[in-house]
Amino acid sequence: MTDQNVTKVLLDESEMPRRWYNLVADLPSPPPPVLHPGTLAPVGPDDLAPLFPMALIEQEVTDARYVDIPEDVLDVYRLWRPSPLYRARRLERALGTPAKIYYKYEGVSPAGSHKPNTAVPQAYYNAAAGIRRLTTETGAGQWGTALSFAAAQFGLECEVWQVRASYDQKPYRKIMIETFGGVIHPSPSPLTAAGRAVLERDPASPGSLGIAISEAVEVAAQHADTNYALGSVLNHVLLHQTVIGEEALLQFAKIGVTPDVIVGCTGGGSNFGGLTFPFLREKLAGNLDVTIRAVEPASCPSLTKGVYAYDFGDTAGMTPLMKMHTLGHDFIPDPIHAGGLRYHGMSPLISHVYALGLIEAVAIAQSECFAAGVRFARAEGIVPAPEPTHALAACIDEALRCKESGEPKVILTALCGHGHLDLAAYGAYLAGEMTDHAPTDAQLAAAIANLPSVPA
Amino acid sequence: MTDQNVTKVLLDESEMPRRWYNLVADLPSPPPPVLHPGTLAPVGPDDLAPLFPMALIEQEVTDARYVDIPEDVLDVYRLWRPSPLYRARRLERALGTPAKIYYKYEGVSPAGSHKPNTAVPQAYYNAAAGIRRLTTETGAGQWGTALSFAAAQFGLECEVWQVRASYDQKPYRKIMIETFGGVIHPSPSPLTAAGRAVLERDPASPGSLGIAISEAVEVAAQHADTNYALGSVLNHVLLHQTVIGEEALLQFAKIGVTPDVIVGCTGGGSNFGGLTFPFLREKLAGNLDVTIRAVEPASCPSLTKGVYAYDFGDTAGMTPLMKMHTLGHDFIPDPIHAGGLRYHGMSPLISHVYALGLIEAVAIAQSECFAAGVRFARAEGIVPAPEPTHALAACIDEALRCKESGEPKVILTALCGHGHLDLAAYGAYLAGEMTDHAPTDAQLAAAIANLPSVPA
Repeated sequence: MTDQNVTKVLLDESEMPRRWYNLVADLPSPPPPVLHPGTLAPVGPDDLAPLFPMALIEQEVTDARYVDIPEDVLDVYRLWRPSPLYRARRLERALGTPAKIYYKYEGVSPAGSHKPNTAVPQAYYNAAAGIRRLTTETGAGQWGTALSFAAAQFGLECEVWQVRASYDQKPYRKIMIETFGGVIHPSPSPLTAAGRAVLERDPASPGSLGIAISEAVEVAAQHADTNYALGSVLNHVLLHQTVIGEEALLQFAKIGVTPDVIVGCTGGGSNFGGLTFPFLREKLAGNLDVTIRAVEPASCPSLTKGVYAYDFGDTAGMTPLMKMHTLGHDFIPDPIHAGGLRYHGMSPLISHVYALGLIEAVAIAQSECFAAGVRFARAEGIVPAPEPTHALAACIDEALRCKESGEPKVILTALCGHGHLDLAAYGAYLAGEMTDHAPTDAQLAAAIANLPSVPA
Repeated sequence: MTDQNVTKVLLDESEMPRRWYNLVADLPSPPPPVLHPGTLAPVGPDDLAPLFPMALIEQEVTDARYVDIPEDVLDVYRLWRPSPLYRARRLERALGTPAKIYYKYEGVSPAGSHKPNTAVPQAYYNAAAGIRRLTTETGAGQWGTALSFAAAQFGLECEVWQVRASYDQKPYRKIMIETFGGVIHPSPSPLTAAGRAVLERDPASPGSLGIAISEAVEVAAQHADTNYALGSVLNHVLLHQTVIGEEALLQFAKIGVTPDVIVGCTGGGSNFGGLTFPFLREKLAGNLDVTIRAVEPASCPSLTKGVYAYDFGDTAGMTPLMKMHTLGHDFIPDPIHAGGLRYHGMSPLISHVYALGLIEAVAIAQSECFAAGVRFARAEGIVPAPEPTHALAACIDEALRCKESGEPKVILTALCGHGHLDLAAYGAYLAGEMTDHAPTDAQLAAAIANLPSVPA
């Protein structure tokens, strides 16, 4: 097969990767340890056992290069994987660029995003450990939908706290979660101490991922038959997502193409890590010369404007301390439509990779992102979720630079989900009602003033 | 490849069918002619020229067995075609049936349904004929979305009249149509004489496909640079949809399986005809012993409760007369959520095939269909559009009969679209707020009392 006429590069189910890739094994130095919030000592498996099954805790700390994917997980993956790698020929033509633009499309999954790649193994390992119920948070709703679907595959109950701003903006998400059998609450909710505390201070709180995490963790910690599941940030989540990049490598090999630039949006980092880590392995091994660029919202710029420091993963300060690029755990981002990118911190592993200088980062305002989303939809037929419009905006920027310079670069981006349940945001954009807010320097400084104190 | 472990059967782009199949060439008798509403003489190309480009008029009346698909159309088809053929292993397991259930999934298209299969060629032929704007009607919004997307591919404007009941139920459809660049009005609208006439009689009219067709046709007939496009019913529409069945035949051949029963939902008939006509060709040739079953909503039962007679395609009586199974052109179906099945008539070609005894038909109430849709979603991960839940309900009925009898039948169904923009309907179902209304015998008799008089 050559790349001459292909619009999408497909893999058979028999070509689906059968193991996840762990970037930690190939980094020049390991990421800093996760610390217990009380003792400030590195957390051990026992500290995490109230929330996660041992199989996932082992994956969180392993330095093995590969982890086998269980057969029962592969069986569910087959409902949508391998996902297609598209060549965006019609977008290239619309831009008039010599660049070749490829996108790996994860919107074919049950939830419409990359999230089921980790929801399914998380549900599987919890069910295998005898757990009866999973709790979680969700922003835009992609993760809650994914976990609700995955829980149904293994006979688990699923209870979801959704950030209030997204809960109100995207009512269809609630119905989809319920269609898959899950239960959903807006967060902050009166059901938990963490939620009640926020509501007392601000009854109209739009919520945040940090608050919703506090609520879901609180309920899981209180019940022995209940565990918590996180949709991003942690090492085992990024591990599971590497099926995306492993497939993309196989697909590029099929057409004899290698990417020059990879761009992906980053909220907690799982989509970005999932696509890029296998390429980073090839780059570290000297097999590939590629620029890897993270794209974050200007309203929540943890990589480009945050500090690299130990911080809590949640707002209430219940989680272990992770060293990460953070805006401060009580930073509440503007309620932009890309709910999945409204997180105060960045995955510790991606923060470490950024600190090592292995990747770049840029921040883009949401109206530029939606303009890119509409442009993409009219050319390619897929209406992207608000989150990957950030990657598309950066991708179009790069393609237009190629038009200036005449360079026929190969650009790869992660189209991590469709926007069918985010159309209200497109409605606001098309009606000219979208606004852009970036935090001021004073707001940024105030938010990091409350970082926990950790001796160097 | 065997069928032992496969979840989805894929085709490469190089295996995509390069011609459409015309069932008329293989029928024992041709369908009755379409008549001019004034003269009652068979219509000729000139009668249709104000609405359609000559290439489509020729396809409407051709008796050639195959029509080549233009390269520019294939180029757009490649954005999502060939579509996957799925084996519903997890649904089979949930039902405990020995039946093997396959579904051909058209929800991977830009509009999320089978509709772009004909929207793209219709836009192509109109653009090639120098047309500047297309008008159309839409029910649930799938067709309007498809035409809006297709028009954008060939530089055409697109104006859509959407049935008011669906316009109100499914606000995201409007935004998706606008995202692709189309313009949308609720129907009945004050913009046309046909719409104003209905609004005078009933300002709160929920509308119907028949009324919306009248509005779109009226505007197209008044402007030389504007043509009309229909999303179902007509021969050329069903012709374009045969790519579905042609692909499914290739996919079954790959795994060495043949279907015993095919079930598909029918509104105007294009999804049903598109999937089944290539299989009907094989059945007529003696190559295949297969039962083919159409499924319609109990609230709009044109095949099972209508009469086979000449009738108008629209409510205002502006279209030519077609011999079809009809409930009467002024029958306004209950505003069920399967807006795409709310049409008073059935495709003349499918009506003819039904009269010839080549297919069966059943009618199912919507709450049974939604129950099937939820069952399917939890097992397979895809939330179906309300329309194909009718096919899924009939498919599950058949699979449960197989469970009783122990027969390992192979069942094929058309999953013609996803329900991401129909989630409000699932919300109503899950909240227990869904009602079922079938027309009474008196209502049916009253509706056919106004059929136009055509000498035998």
